[in-house]
Amino acid sequence: MSEGDFIKTLVVVSHPDISNSQTESFLKKGSEQVDVIWHHVESLKGIDVDFERKLLASCQRIVFQFPLYWYSALAGLKDWIDKVFSRNYVYGDGQYHLADKEFGLVVTTGLAKKDFQIGGIESMTMDQLMAPYRAFAARAHMKILPLFLVDQFWYKTEHQQQQLLIDYQRYLNQDFPDSLVNRQAWFKERLEEFVAGLGESDKHVGGLILDTFVQQMDELDQLGDTLKMIKDGEDDGLE
Amino acid sequence: MSEGDFIKTLVVVSHPDISNSQTESFLKKGSEQVDVIWHHVESLKGIDVDFERKLLASCQRIVFQFPLYWYSALAGLKDWIDKVFSRNYVYGDGQYHLADKEFGLVVTTGLAKKDFQIGGIESMTMDQLMAPYRAFAARAHMKILPLFLVDQFWYKTEHQQQQLLIDYQRYLNQDFPDSLVNRQAWFKERLEEFVAGLGESDKHVGGLILDTFVQQMDELDQLGDTLKMIKDGEDDGLE
Repeated sequence: MSEGDFIKTLVVVSHPDISNSQTESFLKKGSEQVDVIWHHVESLKGIDVDFERKLLASCQRIVFQFPLYWYSALAGLKDWIDKVFSRNYVYGDGQYHLADKEFGLVVTTGLAKKDFQIGGIESMTMDQLMAPYRAFAARAHMKILPLFLVDQFWYKTEHQQQQLLIDYQRYLNQDFPDSLVNRQAWFKERLEEFVAGLGESDKHVGGLILDTFVQQMDELDQLGDTLKMIKDGEDDGLE
Repeated sequence: MSEGDFIKTLVVVSHPDISNSQTESFLKKGSEQVDVIWHHVESLKGIDVDFERKLLASCQRIVFQFPLYWYSALAGLKDWIDKVFSRNYVYGDGQYHLADKEFGLVVTTGLAKKDFQIGGIESMTMDQLMAPYRAFAARAHMKILPLFLVDQFWYKTEHQQQQLLIDYQRYLNQDFPDSLVNRQAWFKERLEEFVAGLGESDKHVGGLILDTFVQQMDELDQLGDTLKMIKDGEDDGLE
């Protein structure tokens, strides 16, 4: 992927009462800053399968986002899945229309992450509960991303919420895996956008910060190369 | 449970086009012979939560039955679950309205059982895929029964289908676990019903068969006691 060319992401959101959900409002605002397609299934007036498939085709990353309700998404998302994804579309006749797209899950829950484990309140892990979605993604030959959990949003401090927001934005359109190099590239892009939007008086300082950031990236890059050379040398010695 | 007093079972069936499903018709006919409540959610005109809860309260065994569609039931069943099972009803305020009831799953699938395993077409087991339903049952303090799989119904011979039908009927209202004693009790009950329904001329022969069956049960019972005595003696010897 060339610089300045973010992944296009479709966020398929299922929520029964989204206008009254402050967690969803918070996430939606965050999503607007990174320019993804926010697609709320319960707001659709009927499901236009052709339109939905065009949306899917236009995106490289597909994310299902929902509150956990009896251990899966509400019926609305399943209805959308059942209607949009025919067998033929997903894997019929050797054609995989979703192949190589990335598949993510954003799950919000009122319980804490620690409750989902053997010995916890729920005795099953979130990954175990997500088996049907992952089986679908695997069948469609999609790349499965780690789950993004938003647990107990309302117990979080404002600082934790802000951290969550950035992590969420990175989940939506940063390259995977979540490595230092991919993080740097993502933050650089965000910083460039931010500096471009500054007033004339701030632009100079902003530019300097950006230059410093890029310089540090380059230095880290060079250090990485040096380390690699040393390691290669050691490996040669071992032969 | 006293003799002649079968478990009451509610079969919550979800199927989008049940009148055209020959598998469902086959199972429905089987269910009628063992007198359970067959409850097709897509046929309901709206969901009357109070009525549904009265149904649930009147039954000792609750079975969800559905074709596997993208690794879970269709949206219809989830909609029913989401509406009928509020948090308060299931485990709120220390009240567990479904506690100690038995929870079963009957899943029909076009793939073979062997396809659902590591290295198989699906790479996940049916038990893994059913995690959300089992997590629900566990949360509700229900007793979880082993899954009943109806795989590739149409590839089965007539003999296999008849065997399936009996197994299905036993799944619906035989006592668990599926031990010899529980099987015998179930078959005895069925045989008694069958003999009672015979014409006068056949009743005599039917009665003799029933007597023989009961006699065999008693002999097996005595043999079991004898074996237990021998085993207890051996255990004593080991002390």
